[in-house]
Amino acid sequence: MRSGVYPGVFDPGSRGGLPLSEVTIAELLKAEGYATAMVGKWHLGLGINGSFLPTHQGFDHFLGVPYSHDQGPCQNLTCFPPNIKCFGTCDQGLVPVPLLWNQSIVQQPVSFPDLVPRYNKFSRDFIADCARRGVPFLLYYASHHTHYPQFASREYAGQSRRGPFGDALSEFDGSVGELLQALQENGLANTTLVFFTSDNGPSTMRMARGGSSGLLKCGKGTTYEGGMREPAVAYWPGRISPGVTHELASTLDILPTLATLAGAALPKVALDGYDLSPVLFGSGKSPRQAMFFYPPSPDLLHGAFAVRLGKYKAHYFTQGSFHSDTTPDQACHGLTPLTPHLPPLLFDLESDPAENYDLLQSGAGPEVLQVLKEIELQKVLFEQSMEFGESQIRKGKDPALQPCCAPSCAPKPSCCRCS
Amino acid sequence: MRSGVYPGVFDPGSRGGLPLSEVTIAELLKAEGYATAMVGKWHLGLGINGSFLPTHQGFDHFLGVPYSHDQGPCQNLTCFPPNIKCFGTCDQGLVPVPLLWNQSIVQQPVSFPDLVPRYNKFSRDFIADCARRGVPFLLYYASHHTHYPQFASREYAGQSRRGPFGDALSEFDGSVGELLQALQENGLANTTLVFFTSDNGPSTMRMARGGSSGLLKCGKGTTYEGGMREPAVAYWPGRISPGVTHELASTLDILPTLATLAGAALPKVALDGYDLSPVLFGSGKSPRQAMFFYPPSPDLLHGAFAVRLGKYKAHYFTQGSFHSDTTPDQACHGLTPLTPHLPPLLFDLESDPAENYDLLQSGAGPEVLQVLKEIELQKVLFEQSMEFGESQIRKGKDPALQPCCAPSCAPKPSCCRCS
Repeated sequence: MRSGVYPGVFDPGSRGGLPLSEVTIAELLKAEGYATAMVGKWHLGLGINGSFLPTHQGFDHFLGVPYSHDQGPCQNLTCFPPNIKCFGTCDQGLVPVPLLWNQSIVQQPVSFPDLVPRYNKFSRDFIADCARRGVPFLLYYASHHTHYPQFASREYAGQSRRGPFGDALSEFDGSVGELLQALQENGLANTTLVFFTSDNGPSTMRMARGGSSGLLKCGKGTTYEGGMREPAVAYWPGRISPGVTHELASTLDILPTLATLAGAALPKVALDGYDLSPVLFGSGKSPRQAMFFYPPSPDLLHGAFAVRLGKYKAHYFTQGSFHSDTTPDQACHGLTPLTPHLPPLLFDLESDPAENYDLLQSGAGPEVLQVLKEIELQKVLFEQSMEFGESQIRKGKDPALQPCCAPSCAPKPSCCRCS
Repeated sequence: MRSGVYPGVFDPGSRGGLPLSEVTIAELLKAEGYATAMVGKWHLGLGINGSFLPTHQGFDHFLGVPYSHDQGPCQNLTCFPPNIKCFGTCDQGLVPVPLLWNQSIVQQPVSFPDLVPRYNKFSRDFIADCARRGVPFLLYYASHHTHYPQFASREYAGQSRRGPFGDALSEFDGSVGELLQALQENGLANTTLVFFTSDNGPSTMRMARGGSSGLLKCGKGTTYEGGMREPAVAYWPGRISPGVTHELASTLDILPTLATLAGAALPKVALDGYDLSPVLFGSGKSPRQAMFFYPPSPDLLHGAFAVRLGKYKAHYFTQGSFHSDTTPDQACHGLTPLTPHLPPLLFDLESDPAENYDLLQSGAGPEVLQVLKEIELQKVLFEQSMEFGESQIRKGKDPALQPCCAPSCAPKPSCCRCS
């Protein structure tokens, strides 16, 4: 989804976006007759006249926020009903966070307590409509939960023991339940693949409002497991047998997998993903044996920071991240500098998922040294073939591109308010 | 179970033990007509002529090791079949670890790969015998897993992805399954309370062989949650509704709870435990609102290191432990000294179970200050009434008390071997 976009993320005024020449999952499936809709957080660019929005990337419908919901001031907004203000201030000096329907702003600033109920209704209506019309569909639901600032509707506010983070997580859980219920009610439960996953580890900088990576090392912004490893659930009654898999998989594999399932042709580019059908349907092992971990700001000089091969993971560079601040592990913190490791740190993720015990520090036997050689070979081969796309982030920002529901108002950006 | 025993644990040659005047659960239930048996690790003393063994503490039968299974040399023993030696050396200069049946040594050194199958057979036979005779029973099964050194039988050796620790955990899991199956086969599933728990957190000193406390802080030997908080499962089909409880409970509560369930009179001493029946049967809240955390070597001068009241926990003293070494959190390590905290560190364990964010460091509101006052009151009241028993550990050791199957052999201790 992010090819050519590195490094960084898009802001409200970014000039760049996911290039329109890239083929998205929505475009693949739309060509096969699927109805397509996207709801929630779209963080792949807005552009001049909304040229990078989902409706230009293969989605028939879009209801959502075109970037992260902290990328605008929130200090006077209600995050939890009846009247609990958002914790923190979010990004100042930007337009208030808008809610878009296709390319139009329908609310600015967005009302957080109403957001998920609105998303859920949109999603249920879309599912029901596709069922009525008898067309296959792709619904991409990108929740804002549990990203900072946490929020929830009246139904979930103050209900969890875990505090604001727990309330947000509960509302998210509830939204998944509503989607499953919609499939059931429309007789689609046994003909729909439901795939659930996330994109990065907890932002522990937010302390108790940032989540936890459990025993995994560090969190968001690092190439340790706590930054990269995510839960994923694939649900398809009658097709996917209940169970747990330890096979290696990546979100990079979603596109090739869905293309295979839909009988769609792959885009004519070098893909980093694999078809995971054998893992989903229990017919074989994962075609993915290796994973290459890049930092938030990668460059050709450093290349992949870490490489996973089977159960082993080698770190050639490590670096902390401000997103992983405030927990006791110094290795995670923002001020912990880029550190090269030669030989690399080498961990057995099955017996040491916390990445605490370097195999090369404790008298490595010949099998471990053989693994190291194999990892080095894979790394070199991968980096030989790796091409960075033109950076979209480096195109910079233009305040005039920030979306405003009253384009000619003054003074900007604060005047951009409509309900 | 340990009153008057602090500080420390018993060794093979310890002179002390749990005083015979203390009333155990086995003694309580035996008086009510229960058959009683204990299998596994007994760490409450051996004494002259086995005077502190389970058979003197209310148990009709005992099959097990009278202390920890690393308290004897293991460097030439097989821990995993077919011929994988135990990792590490265990305690040198002591007699080999014995297996006792009641008060007799039936094997020395114990054969680790045969141990759990033997325990399971003993337990199944005991359950079947009680069922046949129609008597109620108490079976106390104290597994050696997953304590160092890990071991497993042929059925479990090399089977888990998690390595030796995983194999040991799997064998433990299998033993629980065998007990449940025995209840089922003997028609006792619906008339038996099964209670499962542990005594302390992981010994991360053992690295990947030491387990993990997940997001909880530190491990064994500390008064952080990673040292103290344990999973517990109570299972009684038809009586206990499936579910999860967040009510506060302690192993100190097991005795009063079982006494209530069996209609047994409580011993005439001041107990630290509460009857958990309301929690088990869903009829009300836990009678326990507070928990006082003592370090491995407590003393009257320092008193409780930490106090939990509801969802809050206050630390007045913290200290690392060598058992919690090798993870990245310095606060856990053995060289981290005893540190007083005044005001205490105060954590909200519901929103911050990892004990990372001191509420008193971040502008505590009036409710938090009120909680602090209440905790201070509870601490003072508890410590007013707290009496330390006579230390059994300070009675010291006598090498002649180490159990030897061939008492007159030479040279000791290595000659003490029988199979």
